[in-house]
Amino acid sequence: MKQAAKVMTLADIARMAGVSESTASRALRDNPVINAQTRQKVQQIAADHQFKVNATARSLRTQKSHTIAVIILFDAKTQQAISDPFLLDILGVIADELTAKGYDMLLSTSKTTDKDWRSYYFDSKRADGLIVIGQGEHDARVDQLAAAGVPFVVWGAATGSEQFPIIGSDNRQGAQLAVAHLIKQGCKRVAFLGDIRHTEIEMRYLGYQDALRAAGIKPEPALQLNTDFTAQAGYLQTQQALFDQLDSLDGIFAASDAIAMGAMKALLEHGIKVPQQVAIVGFDDIAMSAYCTPSLTTVEQDTHAGGQLLVAQLLNRIDGGQAASQLLPVKLVERQSSLRANK
Amino acid sequence: MKQAAKVMTLADIARMAGVSESTASRALRDNPVINAQTRQKVQQIAADHQFKVNATARSLRTQKSHTIAVIILFDAKTQQAISDPFLLDILGVIADELTAKGYDMLLSTSKTTDKDWRSYYFDSKRADGLIVIGQGEHDARVDQLAAAGVPFVVWGAATGSEQFPIIGSDNRQGAQLAVAHLIKQGCKRVAFLGDIRHTEIEMRYLGYQDALRAAGIKPEPALQLNTDFTAQAGYLQTQQALFDQLDSLDGIFAASDAIAMGAMKALLEHGIKVPQQVAIVGFDDIAMSAYCTPSLTTVEQDTHAGGQLLVAQLLNRIDGGQAASQLLPVKLVERQSSLRANK
Repeated sequence: MKQAAKVMTLADIARMAGVSESTASRALRDNPVINAQTRQKVQQIAADHQFKVNATARSLRTQKSHTIAVIILFDAKTQQAISDPFLLDILGVIADELTAKGYDMLLSTSKTTDKDWRSYYFDSKRADGLIVIGQGEHDARVDQLAAAGVPFVVWGAATGSEQFPIIGSDNRQGAQLAVAHLIKQGCKRVAFLGDIRHTEIEMRYLGYQDALRAAGIKPEPALQLNTDFTAQAGYLQTQQALFDQLDSLDGIFAASDAIAMGAMKALLEHGIKVPQQVAIVGFDDIAMSAYCTPSLTTVEQDTHAGGQLLVAQLLNRIDGGQAASQLLPVKLVERQSSLRANK
Repeated sequence: MKQAAKVMTLADIARMAGVSESTASRALRDNPVINAQTRQKVQQIAADHQFKVNATARSLRTQKSHTIAVIILFDAKTQQAISDPFLLDILGVIADELTAKGYDMLLSTSKTTDKDWRSYYFDSKRADGLIVIGQGEHDARVDQLAAAGVPFVVWGAATGSEQFPIIGSDNRQGAQLAVAHLIKQGCKRVAFLGDIRHTEIEMRYLGYQDALRAAGIKPEPALQLNTDFTAQAGYLQTQQALFDQLDSLDGIFAASDAIAMGAMKALLEHGIKVPQQVAIVGFDDIAMSAYCTPSLTTVEQDTHAGGQLLVAQLLNRIDGGQAASQLLPVKLVERQSSLRANK
């Protein structure tokens, strides 16, 4: 990079404007505390001399990085979460919110972030706060952050015992709505496809059981099949574990839309009619769900409200306030994969 | 955050170890230039005193941020690209590669990054280099970066006239393969769904024309329909623009898998058989393409090689070398949406 002949400092600008360094700094940030004429004068001098605030030097001075780190937690064994369209949706909202609030976003995936997070992000002043997306299987690093008292928030599912703020959808309620809907469509034997070692999925499994019990149906443990988040996993699990039960199985609730689409593919290939023989409901309402054939009934998560809340709560915590856990309402979106003309 | 009783500096550690500051710094980074015994001694003292390298202070000293900014360019009018599964795939590869090379990743979307990029990222020392994903419609900010001589690389489509390094798939060849395949399946009148104001899509349109001309078919401008990257856009465009041509239309080439799935949905709803009456080919090979019904024939992009090359070329450029443009080979993946039993 070409270097300017002489690098201007804030002190140079202040001297030329005949004001103090702190006044010059405030004027450059257009702080209304400084009168308009002085602001304009300082800004003009800065522009004339191509003066730029050095973000690194400013961070060292203020002890703030004006950066938020976002960590996408997922299973090191698989590529699952990183290709999940749901993730990009919420990531996009977070990116927009942070930019609007004057923060940069540092993105990491847990697969590669095998560091001590407190040390890496906070002690080194890389970030002022942390947003962790997805608790995945239980992660000890999240507990360490809580113990360290640093500002962070988690997108995931609260079980009630956590010592840190969690914002997420009402997974249990969403699953309960989905399975009650399947039962109303006449389903009597419904399989659950999803890996209950993830807290969010465990909550969905509890909601599935709630709905069955409310209808007087005893949950069968054999119908809960741990399945990764991908369409491929849903396809293979349906072929391997459900085909020998097809004479009595009449519904599938999948823990993600991708899993549901894979399961549907396996059934259709096998000549099973959806929804007439087996009705299917997914979770997430990704963009593709309305456009597969048959279109997919699913539980919609409010990613927009979720992303905005994560940022608002974290910035509140950074400013010295408290960040509170929050459960977001979900809603059932009924489509062809579950709606039977004759129940 | 709790403060340690006394903050240790690198000078303190060096003094206690009886070595110079530069030796202590190298030892902490485990540089093999320093003998193993000294490295161990310095590292032990640092550990005993909970010494952490302050990333901000180090940046100021080295004038390097050890950070790469990744900008996802997309149309401010729509949410299109941010929910495209293809993007998360390549973003995941880039994140892993940067972490492996010791760099942090600063992520921005162009929707919110309406700043002067050179000033924001480079003059402020926020980043050592920039990766721009997707040229979208022509963006003057990319040309400004090139004129400023700062290190950056672009994922997109080279037209040959750019003054900066572009890495991307061979879009023209991919489209040519797709349309030649449709013609081989008996298609004589093939529509093109995609917005040719994006350079990558323009290249795909050229490949579409190549294949038609090679088969002696004259391209019809009326069959090129500008369509956003979403399934919804593919669905609506097919309903609005193609339905009155259905007596003679027998193929669709879509510029993304999402568009193709939307188009397929509209046809199937209308009672049109895919592939018997209209055969369809998409582009990208997103995970869902194998699991929709009928499964989607598509052009696979090598996102893994793409992400790795972007990082390797950029770091080479930062180290004073040259970053070269590169065209990645693509391949056709044949599935049910285009394979006719009787041609």
